[in-house]
Order: sequence, then structure tokens, then C-alpha cells
Amino acid sequence: MKGRDLALLTDLYELTMMQGYFTTGAYNKKVVFDLYYRKNPSGNGYAVTAGLQQVIEYINGLRFTKDDIDYLTSLNLFSEDFIDFLKDFRFSGEIYAIPEGTVVFPHEPLLRVKAPIVEAQLLETALLNIINHQSLIATKASRVVWAAQGDPVMEFGLRRAQGPDAGVLGARAAVIGGCCGTSNVLTGKLFDVPVKGTHAHSWVMSFPNEITAFRAYAKLFPDNCLLLVDTYNTLKSGVPNAIKVFQEMKAAGMLKGKYGIRLDSGDLAYLSKCAKVMLEEAGFGDAIISASSDLDENLIASLKSQGAKINLWGVGTKLITSDDCPAFGGVYKLAAEEDENGTFVPKIKLSNNPGKVTNPGIKKVFRFYDKNTDKIKADLIALEHETVDESQDMVIRDSNAKWRKMELEAGTFYVKELLVPIFIDGKQVYESPQTMDIQAFCNSEKKSLWDEHLRLNNPHIVPVDLSEKLSQLKNRLIDEMSTN
Amino acid sequence: MKGRDLALLTDLYELTMMQGYFTTGAYNKKVVFDLYYRKNPSGNGYAVTAGLQQVIEYINGLRFTKDDIDYLTSLNLFSEDFIDFLKDFRFSGEIYAIPEGTVVFPHEPLLRVKAPIVEAQLLETALLNIINHQSLIATKASRVVWAAQGDPVMEFGLRRAQGPDAGVLGARAAVIGGCCGTSNVLTGKLFDVPVKGTHAHSWVMSFPNEITAFRAYAKLFPDNCLLLVDTYNTLKSGVPNAIKVFQEMKAAGMLKGKYGIRLDSGDLAYLSKCAKVMLEEAGFGDAIISASSDLDENLIASLKSQGAKINLWGVGTKLITSDDCPAFGGVYKLAAEEDENGTFVPKIKLSNNPGKVTNPGIKKVFRFYDKNTDKIKADLIALEHETVDESQDMVIRDSNAKWRKMELEAGTFYVKELLVPIFIDGKQVYESPQTMDIQAFCNSEKKSLWDEHLRLNNPHIVPVDLSEKLSQLKNRLIDEMSTN
Repeated sequence: MKGRDLALLTDLYELTMMQGYFTTGAYNKKVVFDLYYRKNPSGNGYAVTAGLQQVIEYINGLRFTKDDIDYLTSLNLFSEDFIDFLKDFRFSGEIYAIPEGTVVFPHEPLLRVKAPIVEAQLLETALLNIINHQSLIATKASRVVWAAQGDPVMEFGLRRAQGPDAGVLGARAAVIGGCCGTSNVLTGKLFDVPVKGTHAHSWVMSFPNEITAFRAYAKLFPDNCLLLVDTYNTLKSGVPNAIKVFQEMKAAGMLKGKYGIRLDSGDLAYLSKCAKVMLEEAGFGDAIISASSDLDENLIASLKSQGAKINLWGVGTKLITSDDCPAFGGVYKLAAEEDENGTFVPKIKLSNNPGKVTNPGIKKVFRFYDKNTDKIKADLIALEHETVDESQDMVIRDSNAKWRKMELEAGTFYVKELLVPIFIDGKQVYESPQTMDIQAFCNSEKKSLWDEHLRLNNPHIVPVDLSEKLSQLKNRLIDEMSTN
Repeated sequence: MKGRDLALLTDLYELTMMQGYFTTGAYNKKVVFDLYYRKNPSGNGYAVTAGLQQVIEYINGLRFTKDDIDYLTSLNLFSEDFIDFLKDFRFSGEIYAIPEGTVVFPHEPLLRVKAPIVEAQLLETALLNIINHQSLIATKASRVVWAAQGDPVMEFGLRRAQGPDAGVLGARAAVIGGCCGTSNVLTGKLFDVPVKGTHAHSWVMSFPNEITAFRAYAKLFPDNCLLLVDTYNTLKSGVPNAIKVFQEMKAAGMLKGKYGIRLDSGDLAYLSKCAKVMLEEAGFGDAIISASSDLDENLIASLKSQGAKINLWGVGTKLITSDDCPAFGGVYKLAAEEDENGTFVPKIKLSNNPGKVTNPGIKKVFRFYDKNTDKIKADLIALEHETVDESQDMVIRDSNAKWRKMELEAGTFYVKELLVPIFIDGKQVYESPQTMDIQAFCNSEKKSLWDEHLRLNNPHIVPVDLSEKLSQLKNRLIDEMSTN
């Protein structure tokens, strides 16, 4: 996001509302907005947060350039006073967020903005855009990587991504979610993540025949020689020619790095098993057998269960678009606003759909871990000034099913707060880790879940409760609203 | 794309192959690649091309900056000679393309690159990324707009788009596909398309009550006063309060522009019918009733068939992500390469899947129109030097079903060529029209289809044939390859 003019990356209604607050004089009233989501994508048991680094860059760069101002003026919608006000617009507020790579659950504030309403309102669209996108792809990647059961997974969906950012930031998110690298060179450059790749069918087709193409490639890249074997006929031509080239490399003492084959079409279970036998018989049992071809977590899980002999997975389209669920569904809702005395008054939005009723007030999130296993027991959404006393027993209920309760005995658990300060008084107070460090953190996060939470279908759900005080507040506001 | 450094927006293997061609000395060999797709998205009967303007900007800006060069050097994959070569890299080739907004069909080259292989190879990923994304969204938008049967459709999916570009360029593509405008202000600024919007629930919630919020909004934006009526209770509170404010505006002589309500939740069929009655009874029969809430073309078609009284549609998530089909699936395949004598030799790629066998040679696309109706009769993919004589009878077959033939009598049809020159010798020779002009062109394009081609489900298919010469060439190459 650095160096890009994104002040207008917003819905027009944010600007018309901003002018509204400006005109009524309410624009400096401080408010609190929560960014959260309601449902895990793809039927997953958790989500992985991502995008915070780009949010930080967006906010640091947030100003209306002369071009922006000229354009807004040309719309004949905004008053001169308001336009003047925008010329000096800077974010002056506070943001707390859950760090990237964290395992999160529905209804937890991933990001909490406290700022004058005219500022908090502007951020809505861009923050949702960035967090929704990257959290979606990080979560999808986490599913795909889980399915591969420890085999490395490569992201290479750039050509099917929804535009350049979706490719570049999507690859970043995929790496956060666990991919070992990406084919996307720009992502490699911008985020210092491993880039990988071999050759395409066009390489093979541009030579008089397959073996000449393989030889040329092996000569150029002997240290990382993955040969694409399906241009003509995988088992009759591709694999035998690859084996011939590996034999030549071995004879010449060149077979010292990574080498192997890539399957990109056909029945991957069958072809990989046959190729494995052929490679082993020729003395190349340690060759990599990589596969691509419209893979996703379900297909990988199926291939694994069929005993496919694939040990490197390349995943493109269905990861970079989160094919089965291409939107994360994060929302940004008013939770509190300052009254004349400077007190924050909690706000609620009702809905006919109970899941869409907002949680009022300024909130934080406690995570309870089991002391023996370091696994997550439950999360608790509480009000800002609440604390948890680890020396006291706790009862956690599932906020969707209050009759389900979990008793936590003092001494058996410890607690962590998830939201950390990112901006205070408009100044950045948090440094984003490097992407590979976020990946390492995310890997450790996933270790705090049981396999039952991680599985692809019908996962076991980690309970997320509202604190007693937050529950009471919510019920009181619901009662007040309903009797109006 | 202007001003952005996108040379590394590519898969690593494009660069390793480029180094390969560079090292073997083949890098200056001219080749022809076709960009085409195999299947219409969302079960549609056609696609709408989009993204060419961004392709042009990408190519014009294509150079490796010092940063790019430093990064590539740091990978320890590339030779000094090759890195030096990249420093002066410019596109020097030729590109033909089908203009944006054109109705197209599977297997037609949307874009044809003729260039030294080292250049043509680099373009692959970025061109696919750009064209795939925008053609996908333009096609989806075209479906949504068709379902709305003439009612205006607004795009407002930025918050759920897959990153900033997906929002900004997706909104551009949505407008090309027929949306009357977008909420995305940056798209408005960059592409001079109408931006629209009203207010959010947070506006209503930030006032002591709903009617105060409505009054404040009406005072600010009397000319375009769409009030969101579902914050508390649509029929008991929202619509009555909106009517009260319209009455006050009318009494004050302020009700001169567009005004109405927006429904954003609940049963839109029921609520719109009730709201229509209430508005009519109060003398506001001309009020706009707009609706949003996870809409797509199928839901709009269903609401239409239920007689919902909605006359303005806001479509977000499912349009901007093309929810049911989030990737276009375009590919970029080698079609010909120059031999030592400077002759272009056609190339083919076989596949076990007949639909994946490529069409060899340098090709163009003829479109046949009926002289009386100006409707498309069929398309013909032919070799570069073929012509069509309108004074001769023609027979067109469906290339997927050769037994289905269409006889075109001389005098009853006329022909248009779809591919036009965009770059010649690396120089841009084509000016992209303004986005709204592309929309107008796309509207006229859709008029060249019958309703049976345009319908959402199981559309009638326009036949696309291969010319006799192209068919013969393809069959000959298939025979040659199979007997190898």
C-alpha cells in the first residue's frame, strides 16, 4: 500500500456521512467501531487474521491529494468547508488489533477503532477490504496446508487472482497461512518470502523435442531441476525422458540439488504411483513428485487417502480466489460513542437475525489456555475494563448455546489478551513482523488447536463466550430498544 | 496500473524460462501466443472482455527498475549477462486484441502476442491476471444487469473485494458489464464513472433516534435522499419515519430530486410490497425503492418473478467476487514459432481432454451477423491470411458438434473481424475508449444476441467454428504428434 494514493478507496457514503457529521458539528465526537466477522469461511473451525501490515501502511499514508480534492469538488456534492477540512485530514485516533497470523473465531473484534466519527467512518471500507481479503486467503491456505499433512504447499495462483493486488497480497496471506513459498516474484520482492518455480509446457514446446528441452533445463538449473512431464505423454514420454536426463546428470556429477518431476494433468493418484515406481526402479527414489492441476484442500485430502505418491503440492486458482467461499464477510459496526461528558455510551444494532445483533461497548478478548497442553480452552469477549483472575475458577459458556458450559479450575489455565495497541493518538506504536515470522507465529497458533478443531469438515468448535458484564449490557440494551 | 512497478508481477518460472531462452540463444526467436478461455463463467452463454486498458498501461510501463534488478540478483538464480539484458528490457512486439466490452465465446483469441519469445513469455502471467479478473466481473455484471430487466444496478462490493485492485478494477469491469455506477470513489476518480451512495446504519445509530438521523440526512442531501429504513424496524419505524421526512421536505419545497428508501435486510419481496403501498398511500408513488443484501442475478430474478416492488438494485459481494465462479480460467498458449527462415510454424499442445487441445497457427476471428436483425449468427476462427467473401454462401459448423451446420446465404449476412491492432513494433497504436463509452459499446454488443443467448440458465449457444484451413492444419498436427 506504500506510496499509493488510497484516500478515495472508500464507498461514497462514507464521505457523504462524513460531511453530514461535519455539518451537524458532530464530527469530533469520538466513537468506537469493531471490525469482526460472523462465520468462518469454507466451513472451517477458525480463521487466520491477516492484512494488518497493509492497514498500517494505508493509515500512515492517508491524506487527500490535490487530485483527490479536485475530483471530490467536481462531484458537486460537498461543501467548500468540508473540502477544506479534508485537505488537512489525518488519522488521529487509536487502533487495537489482533496480530496477523492469530487463530480467531466469529464475533471477536479483529480490530477496534476509537476515533472522531469523521475519521472512524472513513476507514470502514478500506479496512474491511484489506482484512477481509487477506484473512480469507490465509484461512484457505491454512486448510490446504493442513490437508497436505506436512508436505510443502506452493502458492501459484497469480494468473487467476482477482487483479494484481489479489495476486500479490493473496500470496502474502497464503504464506502466512502456511504455504512454503509462492511463484509470485513481486510478492517475493515486497515481503521477502521464498519464490519458486520451474518451467511451463511452452518451454518444452519451444524445443524440437521433450528430451532436448529437459536437457537444456537441467543444464541451466541443475540445483533445482523439476521437469514438467505431461506435455506429450506423462508415462510413455515425460517420465522416461526425465529419468534419462537424471541419469545423465548423475553421470556428470550434476545431480546434487533438488530434482524431480511435476504432474499437471491426468489422474494424479495413478500417475504419481506409476512415476514413483519408475523413478525408484531407476534409482531415483528421492526425486520430488510435485503435482498441480486445480487442486484444493479436498482434492489433496482425497489424493492423500488414495496413497498418491506426491510430496510437493502446487495450488493455484482455488487457493488464490478461495474458490468455494470467495468473501470473508467481515463487518465494521458502531459499538460505542462519547456523550457530552466524555463517557463512552455503548451502542447496539438489532436485527431480525440474532447472529447479526452487535455486541455493544468497548471490548477486548481473553483467550484461555490449558496449562498442561497449551491448547486453547475457550475465548471470552469482555468489556474493556474487565480482568481475569487466573487464581479463581472460571465458567465459560458457549454464547450460541448457553447451556453448554466449561468449568476451568484455577491453576489449570492461563490467559492471554488478543488485542494489542497499533495506533495511539494517530501514531503507529506497533511494528509488523516479517511475513515469514508471521508464518512461524501462525504455525504455533495452529498448534494451540486440537486436530478436531483443525479438520476440514464439521470441525469441533472452540467456545467463545461473552463475559457476564457484557451479556448483561447486551440484554439491557436489547430490552431498551425493544420497548421503545 | 500507471506508475506502478509491475515488471515482477509474474511467476518465477517465466523468468527462469526467459533466462533459458537467453542462454540457449533462442531468446530472439519470434513466437505467437494466444490468450483465450475455455468455458463461460457462471454457466453464461457468452463472456464480456475487459481489462485491455490495464494491459496497455502495464506494457507501456514494463521495465525492470533498479530495485527489481537488485532483488533478482539476490536470488542467485540468474546470470550476470541475463540480469544485464533485463536492465534494458522493453516490449518490442505486436499485440492484437478484441476490444473491451465485446461479447466473446470460448476458444477465441481475446489477445494475440507476436514477439521474441523472451518478451512474450514474460507477459503471460500479468496479462492473464488482468484479463481474467476484469472479464470475469464484466461477465458477472452483465448477468446481474440482465436479471434486473432494465432497473439500474449499482456496484458496491469494495469492502468484500479481494484487495484494493479487485475493488477498483472490479468496479470498472462491473460498469463495463452494465452497472449504472459504483460506490467506489477511487474508481469514480480514475475512470470517470458515476459514483453513488447514501448512508449506513451507523449514521442512524449515531443520532438519538431514527427520525432525527433521517431529517439531518434530508437537509444535507435533498437532491438524492435515499433513506436506509431497516436499522430498527423497517415497516413500523423506518418507512413511516421516511414518509414523515418526505412530507416535511415536500412542505418545505425541498422534494425536487431523487428520493426514496433502501431495504438492506429481511424479506425483500414482502417488505418492498408493503413499503410501496405505504409510500403510495402517502402520495410518494414515485419514490425509489432500492434493495441490497447479498443479492446476485438469481436472487434478483427471483424477486422480480415474485413481483417485488424494487426499482434500484445494489449488488456487492456476489458481484465483485463473482461468488459462484470466482476465476475466469483464461490461458495463454503457444500457437506458432518462427523457424530459421523467418516462417511461422504452427504449434499445438495435445491433451487427454479434447477441449484442452490448442488451436495452432496465427489466427483471427470473423463474426457473422444477420443483415436483417444485426444479430450474431456465428463466429469463425480462421488463419491470419484467410478472408471471407460476403458475396459467397457460407457453411458454419459448431466446432464441438460438427454435424450441426448453419448455411449462410450470400447477401443475408455481413462479417466483422474482432481482433484489432493494439501494439505494433512495441508502440501503442490503439487508444482505449472511456469506460462509459465501453459500457455503451457493450450494451450494443448484447443487443447482437437473442434473449435465448442472454438468459441466465442453459442459454442457447452461438456456434463457433474453425475454418476449413485451420481444421485441416489442426488435424494434420494432431496426426503428426500422435504418430511420433
